[in-house]
Order: sequence, then C-alpha cells, then structure tokens
Amino acid sequence: MAAPVIAFGELLMRLDTHGHERFVQADGYRTTFTGGEANVAVALAQWGLPARLVSRVPDHDIGTACLNHFRRYGVDTDLVVRGGERLGILFVETGASQRGSRVIYDREHSALRSIEPTELDWPAILDGAGWFHFTGTAPALGDNVLTALREGLTAARGLGVPVSFDCSFRSTLWSEQQAAEILPPLLEYVDVFVGSERDAQTFFGIDQTGEASMAAMNETYGLRAVAYTHRTVQPTGINRYSAELFLEGTTYASPIVDVSVVDRIGTGDAFTAGLIRGLLLEESPQRTVDFAVAAAILKHTIPGDFALLSVEEVERFLDGSGAGYVLR
Amino acid sequence: MAAPVIAFGELLMRLDTHGHERFVQADGYRTTFTGGEANVAVALAQWGLPARLVSRVPDHDIGTACLNHFRRYGVDTDLVVRGGERLGILFVETGASQRGSRVIYDREHSALRSIEPTELDWPAILDGAGWFHFTGTAPALGDNVLTALREGLTAARGLGVPVSFDCSFRSTLWSEQQAAEILPPLLEYVDVFVGSERDAQTFFGIDQTGEASMAAMNETYGLRAVAYTHRTVQPTGINRYSAELFLEGTTYASPIVDVSVVDRIGTGDAFTAGLIRGLLLEESPQRTVDFAVAAAILKHTIPGDFALLSVEEVERFLDGSGAGYVLR
Amino acid sequence: MAAPVIAFGELLMRLDTHGHERFVQADGYRTTFTGGEANVAVALAQWGLPARLVSRVPDHDIGTACLNHFRRYGVDTDLVVRGGERLGILFVETGASQRGSRVIYDREHSALRSIEPTELDWPAILDGAGWFHFTGTAPALGDNVLTALREGLTAARGLGVPVSFDCSFRSTLWSEQQAAEILPPLLEYVDVFVGSERDAQTFFGIDQTGEASMAAMNETYGLRAVAYTHRTVQPTGINRYSAELFLEGTTYASPIVDVSVVDRIGTGDAFTAGLIRGLLLEESPQRTVDFAVAAAILKHTIPGDFALLSVEEVERFLDGSGAGYVLR
Amino acid sequence: MAAPVIAFGELLMRLDTHGHERFVQADGYRTTFTGGEANVAVALAQWGLPARLVSRVPDHDIGTACLNHFRRYGVDTDLVVRGGERLGILFVETGASQRGSRVIYDREHSALRSIEPTELDWPAILDGAGWFHFTGTAPALGDNVLTALREGLTAARGLGVPVSFDCSFRSTLWSEQQAAEILPPLLEYVDVFVGSERDAQTFFGIDQTGEASMAAMNETYGLRAVAYTHRTVQPTGINRYSAELFLEGTTYASPIVDVSVVDRIGTGDAFTAGLIRGLLLEESPQRTVDFAVAAAILKHTIPGDFALLSVEEVERFLDGSGAGYVLR
Amino acid sequence: MAAPVIAFGELLMRLDTHGHERFVQADGYRTTFTGGEANVAVALAQWGLPARLVSRVPDHDIGTACLNHFRRYGVDTDLVVRGGERLGILFVETGASQRGSRVIYDREHSALRSIEPTELDWPAILDGAGWFHFTGTAPALGDNVLTALREGLTAARGLGVPVSFDCSFRSTLWSEQQAAEILPPLLEYVDVFVGSERDAQTFFGIDQTGEASMAAMNETYGLRAVAYTHRTVQPTGINRYSAELFLEGTTYASPIVDVSVVDRIGTGDAFTAGLIRGLLLEESPQRTVDFAVAAAILKHTIPGDFALLSVEEVERFLDGSGAGYVLR
Amino acid sequence: MAAPVIAFGELLMRLDTHGHERFVQADGYRTTFTGGEANVAVALAQWGLPARLVSRVPDHDIGTACLNHFRRYGVDTDLVVRGGERLGILFVETGASQRGSRVIYDREHSALRSIEPTELDWPAILDGAGWFHFTGTAPALGDNVLTALREGLTAARGLGVPVSFDCSFRSTLWSEQQAAEILPPLLEYVDVFVGSERDAQTFFGIDQTGEASMAAMNETYGLRAVAYTHRTVQPTGINRYSAELFLEGTTYASPIVDVSVVDRIGTGDAFTAGLIRGLLLEESPQRTVDFAVAAAILKHTIPGDFALLSVEEVERFLDGSGAGYVLR
Repeated sequence: MAAPVIAFGELLMRLDTHGHERFVQADGYRTTFTGGEANVAVALAQWGLPARLVSRVPDHDIGTACLNHFRRYGVDTDLVVRGGERLGILFVETGASQRGSRVIYDREHSALRSIEPTELDWPAILDGAGWFHFTGTAPALGDNVLTALREGLTAARGLGVPVSFDCSFRSTLWSEQQAAEILPPLLEYVDVFVGSERDAQTFFGIDQTGEASMAAMNETYGLRAVAYTHRTVQPTGINRYSAELFLEGTTYASPIVDVSVVDRIGTGDAFTAGLIRGLLLEESPQRTVDFAVAAAILKHTIPGDFALLSVEEVERFLDGSGAGYVLR
Repeated sequence: MAAPVIAFGELLMRLDTHGHERFVQADGYRTTFTGGEANVAVALAQWGLPARLVSRVPDHDIGTACLNHFRRYGVDTDLVVRGGERLGILFVETGASQRGSRVIYDREHSALRSIEPTELDWPAILDGAGWFHFTGTAPALGDNVLTALREGLTAARGLGVPVSFDCSFRSTLWSEQQAAEILPPLLEYVDVFVGSERDAQTFFGIDQTGEASMAAMNETYGLRAVAYTHRTVQPTGINRYSAELFLEGTTYASPIVDVSVVDRIGTGDAFTAGLIRGLLLEESPQRTVDFAVAAAILKHTIPGDFALLSVEEVERFLDGSGAGYVLR
Repeated sequence: MAAPVIAFGELLMRLDTHGHERFVQADGYRTTFTGGEANVAVALAQWGLPARLVSRVPDHDIGTACLNHFRRYGVDTDLVVRGGERLGILFVETGASQRGSRVIYDREHSALRSIEPTELDWPAILDGAGWFHFTGTAPALGDNVLTALREGLTAARGLGVPVSFDCSFRSTLWSEQQAAEILPPLLEYVDVFVGSERDAQTFFGIDQTGEASMAAMNETYGLRAVAYTHRTVQPTGINRYSAELFLEGTTYASPIVDVSVVDRIGTGDAFTAGLIRGLLLEESPQRTVDFAVAAAILKHTIPGDFALLSVEEVERFLDGSGAGYVLR
Repeated sequence: MAAPVIAFGELLMRLDTHGHERFVQADGYRTTFTGGEANVAVALAQWGLPARLVSRVPDHDIGTACLNHFRRYGVDTDLVVRGGERLGILFVETGASQRGSRVIYDREHSALRSIEPTELDWPAILDGAGWFHFTGTAPALGDNVLTALREGLTAARGLGVPVSFDCSFRSTLWSEQQAAEILPPLLEYVDVFVGSERDAQTFFGIDQTGEASMAAMNETYGLRAVAYTHRTVQPTGINRYSAELFLEGTTYASPIVDVSVVDRIGTGDAFTAGLIRGLLLEESPQRTVDFAVAAAILKHTIPGDFALLSVEEVERFLDGSGAGYVLR
Repeated sequence: MAAPVIAFGELLMRLDTHGHERFVQADGYRTTFTGGEANVAVALAQWGLPARLVSRVPDHDIGTACLNHFRRYGVDTDLVVRGGERLGILFVETGASQRGSRVIYDREHSALRSIEPTELDWPAILDGAGWFHFTGTAPALGDNVLTALREGLTAARGLGVPVSFDCSFRSTLWSEQQAAEILPPLLEYVDVFVGSERDAQTFFGIDQTGEASMAAMNETYGLRAVAYTHRTVQPTGINRYSAELFLEGTTYASPIVDVSVVDRIGTGDAFTAGLIRGLLLEESPQRTVDFAVAAAILKHTIPGDFALLSVEEVERFLDGSGAGYVLR
Repeated sequence: MAAPVIAFGELLMRLDTHGHERFVQADGYRTTFTGGEANVAVALAQWGLPARLVSRVPDHDIGTACLNHFRRYGVDTDLVVRGGERLGILFVETGASQRGSRVIYDREHSALRSIEPTELDWPAILDGAGWFHFTGTAPALGDNVLTALREGLTAARGLGVPVSFDCSFRSTLWSEQQAAEILPPLLEYVDVFVGSERDAQTFFGIDQTGEASMAAMNETYGLRAVAYTHRTVQPTGINRYSAELFLEGTTYASPIVDVSVVDRIGTGDAFTAGLIRGLLLEESPQRTVDFAVAAAILKHTIPGDFALLSVEEVERFLDGSGAGYVLR
C-alpha cells in the first residue's frame, strides 16, 4: 500500500438545481458533498492511491452524511474532527451555452472555521504520509484555519512530506489584496504549485508571461514543479482546455482539447489529482501532464464534483480510443 | 378589501428528504420556504384575507426564490427587507409510525438576525393593518430582532392593531430560562395567546391546570383570548388533536379528532390562522375554535408547511361530509 | 380463446399530482390513461380474458399514447376509431385521512362526443363477442354517444351478447334528473346491473331498501343479476367495503373488508370486472361476489386506475393467506 | 414606480415530457403555465418593471395554480377574470439535433374564448398604464376575444398608451388568409411591430425585402418602430439568431449570435420584452435591440417559457464577459 | 394488412442511470426493454408494418413487463414463449463528449439460451410471414439458440420468406474466431446483409475495400442486397453517420450527416428497420438507403432503444424541413 | 476499538419500484444493495461497532457500486473478494394493506456461488475478530459457498470467535428437505440461534412449542442463546411484532409492538444486529431483547434494508419518548 495523501480543507454540502433550472425555478435539489482538496482525494482513491481527509464537520446527521459520501468513494474520513456549528453550503445552478453556471455560497460560520489548533495532532496525522495537499481556499477561512494550516505545513516540511498547493482564488471568500498578503509566505512550504499566469501576477508578484512566468515562480519560491492550466469558453459552451508543467527547467505542454461540458465544477481538482498521481508514481513529466489534462477533460462529462474515473479510462482517452463510442 | 394581517418573523428554506428517507440516505431534497408566522399568513391568504410579511432575506436568488414562494400563494412580500448574510435552513426528515420526524436547524446568522431597527418603519408598516401576529421564535433570535419586535408591538398597541402570539418554544434557539425571562413582558402587548398548559406553567408562571390555567393566563396578562391545543400520538402514528378557546370567561372546546399524518409541520400555524380568521370575521367562538382545529387537522394531510385549503374545504370537514371520498 | 368482452366508453388522460400534493402545489404530473369501461377491460385482460375497447381518440401522439397504454396491459385497441378534437383529461390529487381525493374534469369536447354513428359498425364489432359492458357516463356524453350506444345495445341484444351496466353517476356530467330520464330505458338491454340502493332510488324509481331493492330492480327491469356495493370511510382514511349479488332470487353477500387506501379510483371497475369474470366463467355466485370484492379491495392498494392483479393474487387473498407478508 | 405594462392574451398550461422523451414515451409531465403576452410580462417583472395580466381563467384549482405561477415571478394577476370552462393546454416534447420540438395544442374552448366584453373594464384596466402589449394569437381566438381586444386597443389609443404587437402567427389557430384579413386593421392602433419579413409579406401586403420591408411596414401602418428577428438552425441544433430594429428611419442591427438550445419556446417573447424595456426606459436604439437579442439568446438556455434573467445578467452578456464560466 | 415481419432474438431489460451519471453514482435506474431484433420490430410497427417477436422470457412479472413494453409500441408478442430462468440485463451509463457510453452486460443464463428447439413451431410461426430478421447476437447465445435459429432459417428459406441479417458483433458474447466460424454458413439463408467493411473482413473473409467489399460479399454469399454503415465520432461528441446500399450491382450512397447524440443505442437497428421497410415496400434503392439513414439519425435524438418516429417525421427530415424548429 | 464482527454471505443489488407501483407498472427502479448478513453489519456499524463483510462481487462498476454502498454506511469491505460473473438481483415491489410486498429473485450464478475456497484465508479474516455471523441463505448457495462456510465456522470455533446464525429459510433457494439436511450439522459451530418455533420444527427436529421449543433447541444443539421472533399482520397492514430470548435457562420476552410499515425487508436483520450488540456489550438479557425488538420496529419505518438508527434513537424508543413527535 502506498503512503497516503493527506488533503486538508473544508468540506461543503453541494445543492444542485435539476437540469438547467435556475435557482428561482428550483423545487428541489440534488445533494452531494464537495471540497476542493477532498475532490482531489476522491480522484486519487479512484486510482488506487490511499487518501485521507483532514477537516471538521458538525456532529449531526448532515455531518455524518458528508463523511459517508466521501467514504462511499473510498476516501478515509477517520481523521475528520466532529464538532462546530454547521456545514458550509454551495448552491449550484448549471448554465448552458452563453449562460454561465452560478454558485451561491452559504459557507460562513462553518465547522472548520471554528477549529481549535489543538484539535489536529499534525505529527500523528502526517505520520507515514506520502503527500500533503491544500488549496487557496483554506487560508481564506480565517485565523483558526490559517493557524492550523501553518502548523500542518510546518509538520509536513519537518517530516519531509511533499506539499502541493492549488491557488484557487475565490473572490467571495477574500479580496485579492488579502490573498496577496497571506499566500506568498505559505509557498515556503510548498513543492508543487498549480495555478495560472494571472495567479502568479496577482498574488505572487511575478511579472513575466508564458514559460518565463512558470520559471520565475519556480525560482522565486523554491518550488519543485509549477503547473498552469488554460481554459477558453466558446459561445455555444464548448470548453478548450490545456496545461503546462514546468519541472526541472523544462516545460511540458499537454495537447489542447475541446470538450462539451456536463459539469465543470471539480475539473481543476481532477487536474491536480492527475498531477499528484504522476509525481507520486514518478511517471514521466509529459505523461504526468497529459494524464492530468485527460482526467480534467473527462471530469467535464461527469455530474458532481468527483473525477469518478479509472486509470484505464483516462489512459484509453490518452491513447485516442473510445471517444464517444458505446463500450459493450 | 379587509385590513391586512401583518406577520413578523423569520423566513427559512426548508429542505425535505424524499418520502421517509433518513438524512443519511438522502441524495436530494425537495425545497420549500417556511416560517411560523409566514405559514399563518399563507393560510389567511388562501381564505381571502390580505396578509403581509415583515422580515429580512438576503439579496440573492435564494432570497428571491423565498419571496417568490410566498407570493405564489398570495402573500404580499413587498414589506420584506433585502439584506443580510444568509437564509436560515431547516433540514427535515419525515418519520413514520414510532419514528418521529426530525429537524436539523441551520438557522444561525440569518438575514433577519442582523436587521437594524431602522430598516423597519413600523408606523408605515402597520398603517391600516387589521392584525399583527408573531410567535415565540422571533424573540429568541437575538437583540436586533427583539428590539425590532418591541418597536412593532408598541406601534401596534398605539394604533390599536390587535396582536396574536403563538408561544412555539424551540429549545434549539434558546433555553427555557431565557424564554421565561423575555416572553412575559411581551404579553403586555398581546391580545390573543396560543399555547399550552405547559407553556403557561414553564414560561408564564401559571400553576393552575385545565380551564383554570387559561383563565389565569387571561387575567394575569390582560388578554382578550387564550387558546390551548392538545396532541397525543399513537404508536402507529395516528395523531389525536383538539383545542380549547377561552374567551370572555367561557371555554369553548373543539371536538377531539384523530388524523393520519402526511406532514405535521405547520399544523399549529394552521390552527392559529383559523383562530385569527374567526376573531377577525367575528364568527362565534365555538365556530372559531372548530374551524381552527379543522384547518389544523386537514393541514396534517398536506405536504409542506402551508395550509393550502379553501374555506369551503374546511367547512365541508366541519359539516362531516367528504371525508375520504373522491370528489368528482 | 374465450369470446372477447367489448367495453364501450370514453378514454381519458389522467394526470396525478405527486404523492399527496394539492393541485396548487404541483410542478409536475404522472400520466396514465383511464376510462370506467376501459378499466374493466384491463382487469379482465390481466385475468386472461380477451377484452376490446370501442371508443374514439384523436389522431395525434397523445391519442396514440392513450391506445399504447391500454395495449401495454393486453387490451385490444384495434376497434378504437381515430378522430376528433381532443382527449378528455382528469386531473387528480390524492387525499389522505380526512382530506378526500379531488378530481378536476376537463373532458368536454372530447373525441368520443363528436363521434358519428356511422363510424361504428356494431354488427362487425360484436360479431363473436362474449359480453358487452358500458357505464352511466357514456349516456351522459351527449346525443352522438347516446345514439351510438343505443345502436350498440340493440345490436348486442340482437346477437344475444350479454350486457352489463355500471351506474356510476357523475354529477359533473349531467344532473340527476337527466340521468333519471335517460338511464331507465337503457336497462331494457341490460342483463347485469351494478350500482347501489341510492342509485336504484334516484334514477330507477325503486323505493325499497336492502335486499328488497335489489329484487325490485331485478324484476322491474327484467335483469339477470343485480349487484350493490357499499363503502364507508373512517376518519383516518381506512375504507370499509362490501358487496351483494342478487342472482336468481338469492342474495349472496361478500365479507366486509377494511382496507388502507393507496388509490381509490378504479376500485368500482375492479369489482365489476370480477363480477363479469365470475358470470362469464360460470363460477358460483358466492365465489363471484367474493372474487369481485377481493379484486376491488386489492385495487385500493395499486396506484393508477387499473386492477393489475393476477387471478392467483386475488384467490390468495380469498384464501386469507399472504396479507402483508413479503412473498419471496 | 414606473407605469405598469398591460399584457392581454390567453394563459395556458404547459405540460412537458421529461428530458428529450417523445409523447408516446411519457409517463409524466412537468407543469408550468405560459402565454405569449404573459411571458413578456414575466420578463419585464424580472427587470423591475411592473407588469399586469389581463385574461380569463377558470375558477378552479388549476386556474388558481396558473395565476399563482405568474404571481410567483412577480406579475400582477389581480386583473385576470375568473370564469369559463377550461384552461388551454400545450403539450411539449423537446427535440434534439435534427429532431425539432413538437407541440400538441389542446386550447379550444378555453376560458378566454368565452369572455364577455363586459367582463373587462378597459378604462379602469388601462388607467395609469405605461404600455399595452398583445400578439397575433389573441385575434385568432374568435369573436369574443377579438371584440375585447379591439375595445382595449381603442381605449389604449384614447388614453395615449403605447401599443406593441408581436405577429406570432400560429397555423394551428387560424389560416393565413384569416390572419391577413383580421390583422392589418389592428395595426392602426399599434406603435411597435415585432415580426419578420415573411410576416410583412404574408399578412400585411409588403413586397419589399430587407430594410425596405421594415421601412414599408413603418410607413404603411404609421408605426413608431418595427423589429424583425432572424433565426437559422444548424443540423446539430445550434441556433443562429439576430434582429434589426427600424426606428425613426434608421435600422439598428444586433450582432448575430450562435446559441446551444435548452428550450426555444419563449425566446421571441424575451426579445419583445427587451424591446419594450428599451423603448420604455428610452435607452439608445442600438442598446435596445442588443439587449433584446441578448435576452432572447439567454432565454434559449433556460427551461420553461420565462426569461428568468436579471438586467445584470443580460448586460454581462452584452459586455462579453461571463460566457460559460462558473460565477463564484 | 401487410404480411408480418418476424424478428427472432433475445429480449433484455435495459437499466439506465439518470442523465450522465456513472454507474458508481447511480441511486436509481430508468427501465426499458430492448433487443437488437426487437428494436427493428418496434420501428417497423411505428411505420404501420405488422411485426412479431419470437423469443423466450421468464414466466414472472418482469417477463410480463418486458412483453408489455413491446406490446405498448404495437409489436405482437403472442409468439414469445414463456419459461426459463431469467431475463438478461443491460446496465447502461450514457457518456458525453469524449467519455463514451458504457454497457455492463448481465445476460448469461437467460431464458432464451435454454430454449428447447421443440418450443418453437417454425412452420406455424412463419406461415404468412413477409420477412424474417435476425442479428449476429443470436448465434452467439449457445447451441440451443443456434439450433433454433438454423431451424427457423431453413423454414424461412423453404417458405420463401426473405431474410435479413445484421452482423452486430459483440465481443462480450463470443470471440472473433467463434463468430468467423459460425456466421458464414448462416449467410446461405440470408438475403440482405447489414454490416461494415470491417465485418466483411473479420468474419466473412472478404479482403476488398469500399464498394468492392460490398460486391464481393454479395457475390460470395449469394445475397440480394448488402448495406454498410459508417460512423465517426468527433471529440465533443457529434457523430457523423452515413450508409451505402449495394443492390443489383449498383451502390447507392446516403448523404453524410452530423448529429448531436441523446442516445446512440438502437441507431443501427433503426437503420436496418428503414432498410427492411424500403425493400418490403419496394421503394427505390436511393430512397431506401436515405430513409434508413434518416431513421438512424433521428433515433440518435430519442432516449431508449426505439426509433419512435412516424414515416412523416422521417420524410420531413429527408425533405430538409423541420430541423430544430418548434412544430406548432 | 472493539473487536470486529465478521459477516459472511451474499451481497445483492436491490431494485425497488417507486412508491407502491407493481412490477408491470415500473418505468424505473431505486437502487440499493443488500444481503441478510450485510444488513446486520450495517446496523452494527451505525452503533459504533466495527463490522466487516466477507463475500465476493464481480470486478466491474456494479460490483464497485455495491461495495461503495456498504462502505458509505461505515462497513469495512476490504475483505470482499473481487471476481465472478454477476451480482445477484432482488426486484422488490412494496405492497400496501392486504397486498403483500413481492420479491422476484434473480440471484442464480452469482459471484459468491463460484467462489473457490482458497480465495478466503479464514485464519487471517478471523484474526482478532469478536463475532462471526451467517444466515440460512449462505448454505443454500451451493457446494462452493457451503465449503467456504464450513471452513469459516471451523476456523471461528478454533479461534474461539462466537457465532450467530439467523435461520432465514428462503423457499426460492432450496427445499425444506434440503435445508433440514444441511442446516442441523452447522449448528455444531453456532452459539446464538435466531429463528422461530416453526424453523425449529421444520429444520431442526424440535417438536416442542413455546418456551419449551427454545429450551430444546438450546439443549439439543448446545447453544448459548436462542431467540424467536413473532409477527402477525393485520388486514390494513399494521404489523404486530415481538421476540423472546432464551439465555441460560431463562426466557426474556420483549413487549409486543404494533407498527405501521414503510419497508419490512431487513427488519429481521435489525433484530439480529440488536441481539448481537447486546450480547457483545454484555447488556442485560432483557435490555438485549428489548433493544433488538426496538431496532426491528424502527427499521419498519425506514426505506431500504438498513437499520439506519443511532443507539440514542433506539433507546429513546425504549424509554417511550419521541414517538411520532417532531424533534426540533
């Protein structure tokens, strides 16, 4: 059994209107649970890599349902602390064509935000861990979470556990200024950075563009790897997606792929999971970024936040077979 | 057009699991909106009486959906203030037989709780009003709401608008001690009290039992009318329900009725609405309490919080016709 | 193969709100198709007896869906004429406990009502038929249908095909006076009458009560058999149901049975189908009325209008086994 | 508060099969309510403009549900008369790719068709009105409606209320000849015409093409503004949509936009609503036609007939931002 | 009435996850019934051609539901034998964009596989038949089915009933080697072959390509007609589809059509049904292949396996009208 | 952490029609997974006791979905072997009132049935185990399963792991004679027997009745404890349920409880789980049988096979509080 990946972050309830209904039309919601870091854990678990959540959810049946949901998909939830007031909620309506999807966040006062640093025993949590992952939403959740995160990062560095960070700026959580102040110092503990040229510019003071931007991020923050993803959206809703991985001085570019979207949420997490998998399993950098993009592309076709895909399915995509056929 | 009934209180989103599913089984929820006072307003609107909500909901699409829901059923929502952080949520699973229904409240930090007294112009709101209704949950929502409520009650008294109060103690909102401290002074402004002998004892210092309890409530607090409701639940889920109305020194008892339950939530509000209607229209006290109980009984058979019943349907029940028949 | 039963009457679309929702709550409907006579045909088809519909439905996809629905359950629809403006609609909300179910009819201007007598070639339709069935709704549908019905009855009498009639008065279709004028002459062609003491009194001038009423109906109208059904509804929704069959001077009473109701519509048709089956197969009169009541009782537990029951299931009920058990 | 827009026309129930199911596959329908003029009213209400329906619906619960549906979305239904036999019904199956959507109308004998002119007090209805809107379906509904419409138009002209007319020819309601006879005289009362070059040719005797057609319509009928919309459909279902507005001698052309379709019904009404809004608020002609097209485009992505869009959403589309992104 | 088409093959239950859900997400399934040969029968029945199934299903309610499903759509199921252990099942998840649809077969030990040759009285079955159709899955179902099939083919040949064969190789049922051994001898009884160049090569020893392949198939196996279909899938899920019919020495090519896919399963059966119809009704070869491709294209837009299309709808497509429009 | 309970038996897919629909009405199914032994494991996991499944499921996505379903509810599935042909299926329609629920089994040729004894390493499986549970269905699944079971029982006895056995005779799996031959020798390894007087008589040669039957079972087979459950069903569907526990020479009788049924399947498993819990935690015998009956009663009110109940909920029932109330 491989050493487990530890994913630290908030868990939320996701409530989706049916089909393409708008919020004001909804008479019911589908229910799943999500979290940027937890989505990465789910994808890794589908690929046979042990993954554990570190978070905090209320000690009532909705909290239990949340943990059950992640456990259903093979993620270990035993490290999640029970307590606090409420689970944050994400209301989602799925757009179509030129109408973008919309999210209404109701995530203030969440169980994780009121965590006491003493509730997490980081040395025990990270003992034997193979990887530590967090995103830019965790530091945005207030001092308690930030403190806990810093302790976790310090412990990870001390234990030599590699750390990945997905920038994921959310303007509903904090301002660009706040992020630009708090995020850079955290990179000291980070090995793998996932974001975009715009992120590098806005939050990390990197003025270069293109490959130079990745190189500058790498050098400035002493990273092992930098990955940028790119997306453009066509008027009728087709998404064009690609990524680059900068590793040991070389840039590896994925193919550029068009995809018709069922559910875009969680596609970035699928990419990050693919990246972590490639680096953990020491696949070639080109294969790593290709696999990550393939996972992200295929995630676009799956409802919900999770990249419920087998390694074989992703590889079949990479081999160019299977697209749109009925496999029977 | 009759003078409108003003209902002041919190509006919440209600999310129900499907059928008799437990929370941990739910993969989706039906969505409605509710509120103890607002449910009374909806019932009155079904009966042709103008009803207006006074509350506060966030200025986003879920807030709009909430207002739309009440407006759909004929309640005027123009007085509802837009603002604040979030709408409180009520997760509901419907029990069966010996398994009671369960509610998980996620109603802290709601839009109403952060209302500023200046946001409500009570003299304007109550101008031309025929009735003012509130319940015991409003005073439990913190100082801002309590202040706003007191101002509303003072204005109502000043304008001679009759006031009804449904005790509705919720242990998830505050303690019995807190309620026993805050509620009694509010009765100074109340004309019609709806509750139970246990409420009288616990919160209002009334030691008598039965009819004497109602008389004591009446006298102690200078009320115009006191109504008590009674419910017992049989093992297989049949509910036995009745009520008494104490008015001008006389007690009027309703029949005792058994009912098979589809949805119990909102049945007390249906009763209160029936009571207000009878008093407003100056029906006989016996007819008033009978109508109120009939409305409550029939509400048990309707999914959701609302007593979506016509006057004719309630009266047909009172006349003993129609029960269980197919009307075609 | 037995000689087929011919059922003449209107076919309608039935739209049901979900669960116990009221019309004003509905955001969707379940769709089936129905018809008092057609329901009898469906039950007979489940029991292996060939059954054919004679009716008229529009020549569009909703008309086709209607015929498909009956054909799905084994009824022959080849005799149904295509044409006319629209299919009548029955909106249904299912009550609970003291709240009765409600039906809103939208059945005016239906395809059958505008039928031209020449569209039905009765001698061909009835050639080789073993039975002819109609109800009291057909004569209420206007002159065209009444004329067609009279021609059918005349042809049946001429060919010696036995005729059954289920009184089924619907106040939304015509008045009691109209029915009392039009129905009695039709009994001249009828062999088996299904109704109630109240029907005998209101429409057929029979003043006697109880068994004497059945005997009087029998004698006055020269019938072969008379069947009365009885129903009382308890406050919490349990239905008490029984029937009597008067045949060759003797009354055969079924047991009195209590049943908890899923869907009451079509239970009378299930009874009539059971009666026709017993008479056609020359079962004993007692077995005939018992089977008919058993079919009606079990129909109460099935959603939709159809008695989708095997002979074995009805007989297992008669044998007192199986009630409420899981058969596995 | 702006002066209200009055929309006169028929209200119908819309029953949709689920997903892309054909009528013959349907086992249930989603239920909404619609009406070409009422859809315009709903869109205007979303944009903060007061809108009122003038129509007639039956005095039963389906009629009430219809009004509740429009009231839910902020449209004033107090002017709608209750009475008549039935609500017209629209059965809809949604096509895909080369299979077009299909509608089966069951709208004969509707409540509106039997309206008596005396049921509408036009001077009172139009008192203080800011706009009057009708479509080409109203004059197709028979003499009673035509008479009522003419009275309304006369009153509007007398009171100086601007009138818009959307041609919307429906071959299931009447023939082209009938329309060509009845519609032209109505234009005498119209200020703003919405249609197509083909409409101008077929019903209004205009032989010119392109811009000249609009100019000829304008001049011939003394209009204030003429708007034409254009649509072509690609084999795989993408719709290409654009419009032109002819105002004071100048033609303002919108961009040509491709859109992937969720629900096409009501897109023309969204356009008309955008047009009315721009003219009422005296926006620039170019902005007016652009906004109208943007509203129509976005309506294609929303299930049901209503353009449930905020002004901000339409403007964000016009600004070219947001397309296909997750807004969070 | 035309002479009936006999379709011999297995009937299966099809269970579909909802929307684009993956198997591991499913909390429910939609249920239909299918079968390559039966799907052809359903399409023919929609077009007014009598079609009869020859198969075997268990004598329980799921077996009955299967027959009811086909009967609903007008197919005669009276020849289907009842018996055997179980109905095969097909679990289906519908892909999107680059994620292909997936099928999990659970069809071993099916009722048909254990059929005894004596259970089918082929001379009686084929008496008066106008056509016999089977696919490459039937011979893959084991010796019992193969024996029965051979007897049927022999009887058909003896009676002069034309026979069509759709190659439909399924790798989950048998290997290419097995198929290459068993299929060719069956062609001796076949008049019309439907497949692909690859089929000709893999199973029938034909090395030529393009038109020459069809000619070689025709000559080698003494066929009357050969039809090849072609499909390519674009990354975002659009399917490009076309076909060629080789008849009496001439190749008739259909147009090449792009289609956006709702449900691909059964599109090949729709093509074959179109082919059979054209040949049976002696339409021109070009019209025949065009109609067959049009039926296949439109089937892509219909959920489930059935080409629920009228002749008029297919012809309207051929005439280039109607695409993507709302027909009202 | 307590020593885990090992549950050995078959896992099946359960497909339920919606509401009270009959199989022939179904257009879709809800999907869960079940297994008599696995249901016990789920109940124990809800109560904080570690529970592990030993079984075999196919190595495809339906097999994965099955394991995910149990893991969701906290059961350890790591010991389940992947392989074999298919997962058995249970089609369920839920009865009402006098119509019993019906199950169609499609469970032949299941993955477990073809298990090779070498696939289960019993000493490793049972290492550290606190309990072993199996039911009478496992021995009915053929020689492979029986051999594996015997090896498991032998290992359990060798390791001193207590063994419980729930008789659960299924006539669809084997005959009474077969059961009477195979089951008794297995009791040699059993400590706790759950069944009925009829089971004792039919399969285990015990002629006594009542308490004497339990004593005789105990003595004859050297058991530690014997539990009998009793159920009678009233015509309108109310179930009367009770149980007795015979332990160390004394009989402990539970109260007799009436319950209104939502889903009866799995109620026996809930009872057995309650029994195992009481014995494992060394609760008093009376408390043990009362808790077990309470769990069974409450399970009747929960859809699906699982007793998704907390210890607190069961105890609240035992304390007589909460019944039918809304807990808020």
